[in-house]
Amino acid sequence: MRIPELEDIQAAHSRIKSFIHRTPVMKSQQLNELFNCELFFKCENFQKVGAFKFRGATNAVLSMSPEEKLRGVVTHSSGNHAAALALAARLNGIKAFIVMPENAPVVKKNAVAGYGAEITFCKPTLQAREDAARLIMEKTGATLIHPYDNFNVICGQGTASLELLQEKVDLEIVIAPVGGGGLLSGTSTYIKGINKSIQVFGAEPLNANDAFISFTSGILTASVNPITCADGLLTSLSELTFSVIRKNVDKILTVKEDSIIECMLLIWERMKIIIEPSSATVLAVVKENQGLFNGKKIGLIISGGNVDFRKLPF
Amino acid sequence: MRIPELEDIQAAHSRIKSFIHRTPVMKSQQLNELFNCELFFKCENFQKVGAFKFRGATNAVLSMSPEEKLRGVVTHSSGNHAAALALAARLNGIKAFIVMPENAPVVKKNAVAGYGAEITFCKPTLQAREDAARLIMEKTGATLIHPYDNFNVICGQGTASLELLQEKVDLEIVIAPVGGGGLLSGTSTYIKGINKSIQVFGAEPLNANDAFISFTSGILTASVNPITCADGLLTSLSELTFSVIRKNVDKILTVKEDSIIECMLLIWERMKIIIEPSSATVLAVVKENQGLFNGKKIGLIISGGNVDFRKLPF
Repeated sequence: MRIPELEDIQAAHSRIKSFIHRTPVMKSQQLNELFNCELFFKCENFQKVGAFKFRGATNAVLSMSPEEKLRGVVTHSSGNHAAALALAARLNGIKAFIVMPENAPVVKKNAVAGYGAEITFCKPTLQAREDAARLIMEKTGATLIHPYDNFNVICGQGTASLELLQEKVDLEIVIAPVGGGGLLSGTSTYIKGINKSIQVFGAEPLNANDAFISFTSGILTASVNPITCADGLLTSLSELTFSVIRKNVDKILTVKEDSIIECMLLIWERMKIIIEPSSATVLAVVKENQGLFNGKKIGLIISGGNVDFRKLPF
Repeated sequence: MRIPELEDIQAAHSRIKSFIHRTPVMKSQQLNELFNCELFFKCENFQKVGAFKFRGATNAVLSMSPEEKLRGVVTHSSGNHAAALALAARLNGIKAFIVMPENAPVVKKNAVAGYGAEITFCKPTLQAREDAARLIMEKTGATLIHPYDNFNVICGQGTASLELLQEKVDLEIVIAPVGGGGLLSGTSTYIKGINKSIQVFGAEPLNANDAFISFTSGILTASVNPITCADGLLTSLSELTFSVIRKNVDKILTVKEDSIIECMLLIWERMKIIIEPSSATVLAVVKENQGLFNGKKIGLIISGGNVDFRKLPF
């Protein structure tokens, strides 16, 4: 099991930078006043396909051999990784096979279909997704690009923090959401590689707190049918992401559903940007633990902006 | 009746530029492909108070005499101008009295109250608003800062186009929404002052088409109880804005309610920014008249992003 290092993320950024958007780092005076700290939002909702996942998917596709590229890629995903891989594949002339849970948000299904991928729907369980993906691999020889249990994907996700630190070098804390752990793994590897004194926190819904439990107990533990409005964070850590997170992350902080919804609304209202519920967890961590953050300079990774507007949680 | 000229808008920009945000000009490859033209969105939803109105209000306040400032300002507004004047007044240590229709969106009422203004609610008619404002003027000696029938306000609103042309000089068309006409007056004065060959269009809801009727007939005509989701465009032109628009605007194009809603959703989904229904009219003009815009470089003034999320039109 190869663990990503700082240099791997730097190499990933060189590889993908001409394919991705360099997303803005936004500030909000109103939110700074409300929470008594300085917040820097790395806005991956403005990334291609509306999520940081395009970074990892692009890095994975660009790292494939010519022979592998000929046979295409396959993945299973609740949505953003699926769209990301579909577009990354299309931009490289590669065929993409996508397994999606049948209850994925409509906007995410449409995006994947729009990028020309071949979609297979399955039951919304990890087992059903993995089975369907394996079947496609056997039939086509396509390479599985796992949404987070993948070295190249993690390295790609870490490049958001590389750009964040390039713009704001003196951050004291960086917070990223944690679902399967790809983003938090990449984020923490990069941040700690640059400066060990910057704290890295994971933000997780209390209702899907497998990372918190695994991190606290030291034993990798999966979520069982988690129910949260943060639909990008339903997945559980893998051995790879758990290893990276144990090594590099300072704390996992869980947040309540009403905090997630309140912070999502706050960002919509005050910053006029659309973020998905999963992204609101990072601000919810600040809201629920103000003593930890008073007067600090904090980087928040806004993971995406793909929302089904007909199913808003407020 | 003094008509604004190019130089007045340039002077307004010098006066207000340290008080306002220089808002971004955004692009969307997906929308360009969808409508087969090049769109440049001047994003006043990111302006202070979430709307271009802060430009005009700030210019009006900064243009007052010291004696006038002592007695404060008063206005009547469906919301964005009210919040804008309240904040502009507070930043200059001036008292603000605001008359608002009792059916104004909650988010706009809260914003005005949050800026410390004294609010008087009235019936949602122009007559009721004007009466209430007059009463306050008589009692306090405050200066009326009309939302659009005001020279300094119009000059302030024109500064959004000044910044737009500084970033994208070779636009062929600029489209701004038209309600009372302050934004369209300022926009068209600036654009035609710089380059007469750039076309300037007004975007107006078909259900509140007083500007279209006035412009076409040559006779200033008010709307009677207009009903549109574009709640910032319910007001009718004044003599001043009608004069400026007749002189400088090439066309007023009306758009249907379902186009406004569809284009609002398109911008939310594809650009991940929050815009209010009034702002979607400019894209709706492009959608309903694609023959006019094929292959063209078009500037769109996105007027604001203050939306009541519990009363979305979709």
